[in-house]
Amino acid sequence: MRMYDIIEKKRDGQELTEQEIEFFIDKYTSGEIPDYQVSALMMAIYFQDMTEKERATLTTAIVQSGDQIDLSQIEGIKVDKHSTGGVGDTTTLILAPLVASVGVPVAKMSGRGLGHTGGTIDKLESVPGFHVEISSDEFIDLVNKNKVAVIGQSGNLTPADKKLYSLRDVTATVNSIPLIASSIMSKKIAAGADAIVLDVKTGAGAFMKDLNEAKELANAMVSIGSLVGRKTMAVISDMSQPLGNAIGNALEVKEAIDTLQGNGPKDLTELCLTLGSQMVVLANKANDLEAARVKLEESLQNGKAFEQFKIFLRSQGGDDKVADDPSLLPKASIQKELPAKTSGTVSSIIADQIGTAAMMLGAGRATKESQIDLSVGVVLHKKVGDVVEQGESLLTIHANQEDLEAVSEKLYDSIEIVDGNVEAPVLINDIITE
Amino acid sequence: MRMYDIIEKKRDGQELTEQEIEFFIDKYTSGEIPDYQVSALMMAIYFQDMTEKERATLTTAIVQSGDQIDLSQIEGIKVDKHSTGGVGDTTTLILAPLVASVGVPVAKMSGRGLGHTGGTIDKLESVPGFHVEISSDEFIDLVNKNKVAVIGQSGNLTPADKKLYSLRDVTATVNSIPLIASSIMSKKIAAGADAIVLDVKTGAGAFMKDLNEAKELANAMVSIGSLVGRKTMAVISDMSQPLGNAIGNALEVKEAIDTLQGNGPKDLTELCLTLGSQMVVLANKANDLEAARVKLEESLQNGKAFEQFKIFLRSQGGDDKVADDPSLLPKASIQKELPAKTSGTVSSIIADQIGTAAMMLGAGRATKESQIDLSVGVVLHKKVGDVVEQGESLLTIHANQEDLEAVSEKLYDSIEIVDGNVEAPVLINDIITE
Repeated sequence: MRMYDIIEKKRDGQELTEQEIEFFIDKYTSGEIPDYQVSALMMAIYFQDMTEKERATLTTAIVQSGDQIDLSQIEGIKVDKHSTGGVGDTTTLILAPLVASVGVPVAKMSGRGLGHTGGTIDKLESVPGFHVEISSDEFIDLVNKNKVAVIGQSGNLTPADKKLYSLRDVTATVNSIPLIASSIMSKKIAAGADAIVLDVKTGAGAFMKDLNEAKELANAMVSIGSLVGRKTMAVISDMSQPLGNAIGNALEVKEAIDTLQGNGPKDLTELCLTLGSQMVVLANKANDLEAARVKLEESLQNGKAFEQFKIFLRSQGGDDKVADDPSLLPKASIQKELPAKTSGTVSSIIADQIGTAAMMLGAGRATKESQIDLSVGVVLHKKVGDVVEQGESLLTIHANQEDLEAVSEKLYDSIEIVDGNVEAPVLINDIITE
Repeated sequence: MRMYDIIEKKRDGQELTEQEIEFFIDKYTSGEIPDYQVSALMMAIYFQDMTEKERATLTTAIVQSGDQIDLSQIEGIKVDKHSTGGVGDTTTLILAPLVASVGVPVAKMSGRGLGHTGGTIDKLESVPGFHVEISSDEFIDLVNKNKVAVIGQSGNLTPADKKLYSLRDVTATVNSIPLIASSIMSKKIAAGADAIVLDVKTGAGAFMKDLNEAKELANAMVSIGSLVGRKTMAVISDMSQPLGNAIGNALEVKEAIDTLQGNGPKDLTELCLTLGSQMVVLANKANDLEAARVKLEESLQNGKAFEQFKIFLRSQGGDDKVADDPSLLPKASIQKELPAKTSGTVSSIIADQIGTAAMMLGAGRATKESQIDLSVGVVLHKKVGDVVEQGESLLTIHANQEDLEAVSEKLYDSIEIVDGNVEAPVLINDIITE
């Protein structure tokens, strides 16, 4: 078998066999196939696409390129959730205790994030004492006992994906549905999930700006999941503006606490209930999405979800008093309001730019080595469709720096106010259940 | 400027600017842009093509990546000829003295060939004493004095093409019209040609098996030539069977001598007159193709072309007695006829396979280091359309080895004989003069 023939076959629009895909991933991971042949193949795939079977085979080959987490000692169906990313996305912090509170085991492997704010682990570490450096055995015990635990990423998971992604990133082949779908799905499968819920973001602040592309990606991932024997569902949700109100690590933890007590922002709560319902159904803890939703709403109302969150914090060394008194979370020294310059209706909040402003305050990492300030960020008071009076506060900046001129300017640039009515964007664009 | 943006732009079907193409060729030649980005761009070009302007710009950038031969001290318009390659193609040996005999300066830089038989230099070296190791000054003096000289390849011509070709060869991006056209044209232009005549082969034995693709390639090259200010014409000629009758170095020299005396195979003579007429017109030595052809036919008939060949051999140390007595050429120890197994009409002679048989006899090089046997090869006695009786000789094998079983089998496999009439293939499919 020769890599040349594989490139030529895909270039000519033919379907690659299982053997060909496994050969290419295997030999690329081991370094026997050079980057320049793989980048040519990636570009050929960009133009010629892959069949559903090819996509599933590629995903499995990537999973098998490295270690796979064994969660078989955890009772029940382990459901993982993945978001394609956005600004102010606090859903994991809420979903983990929420679905655990109705009996779904949540065994979450998470990383430190690059970008506007940190990853789930960074956010959890704003709770004093909380740590994720636990052994695999301890992790499994915790999930069996409490239904929820989070562990830092370990092991050599999907090395083929890491190599492929680095190469695609410099050869303009990132934006290819079969390649994105197999990359995401391989990571979730290698991390041990039995079933997967996908939150595919669409709109200006998302990777998939176009709704049809987002749907195509969601369908591609659900199809891969089904073909490789992992039940998969997807939600297409709006990221034309930030989700929820808080952007910043401790600020998002506080927002998660509010939401778990039933007092969260409407959009964030709604998305968590939608995604959570899918997780509950996939874990066989409810017969349908409606029944699952009822369970989750009850859990928010009767305090079980909130109590589960406190158990979770305690079990990994965190100070659960934070849940009752969020003022114990890291707090920025300066709170500054951003008054509206004109009266009108908010017509757009560019999520990317709000994220960049949070980065300027120190909430995110530009490089893997960057230190992040857990306390800083932004809390929106107005969302798209809201009416605002001149001088009324659009948002609060939480900062540890005196000079906020550049940040304020960036924030003003990212919020547009117009005369007349504006409809709030639709939050859930589509639900895909195979 | 970033290579990433250039790949993305071409991927999305946009036209690259002059600056972008120059940047990419310049930085790739210097090693600043890695192979894996260039192979992605090559594949994007394979799918998205290039405009006429892009192709011309790419050609010029490749020319400028290395040395350029300065032939300005040679009087007159220097016309070069290029063939896209085939089996038994002896045209250069004939054309050089033929067009020189009517006043067209032929300053030929040539190489040693890889493949079925050697290159032009290998063939010329079957003439005892002939050598191409001459200085540039001597080369120019010879062309000014005798109108024709051949020199071995020297200098660092089109290094960008060498790098690009090696990469395309292993990434399934060779077969792309804009890339083939710019590669060929850049080499001819760097070698100092004022005008270029192209012999684009089509049919089973050619690189472009499909007539329409051959036409597309010819048009692409003529367009590049016109845009970069080098007058260019092209002929689309048949390579469904070998050209002429001889395949093998000394055997082809003998055939060239016959042809220069007006006794050559019909197809070879016709193609030389067609290509030669274009060279004469481009060199301004005749007003139109018809007038040019008359001049060349006269030169073949009155012995001027043959005399020019002898002058050419002498001027570079060759023994010109060879021209009058080709038995002085290297001669194989064994001549063996290949009798037809059945009676009928020859319906196909697969040029590639005849070439492979010649390689098996030692006529060609498998690698750059291979030694070739100048004396061996094959001389066809029948061509497609010819009637043959059982037992009649199809061809003569010239060999220096006793065991000819495998070679004979290969040759039988490559010649098909059928009942009934077969039309001889059309030799000249098209003539393109801008």
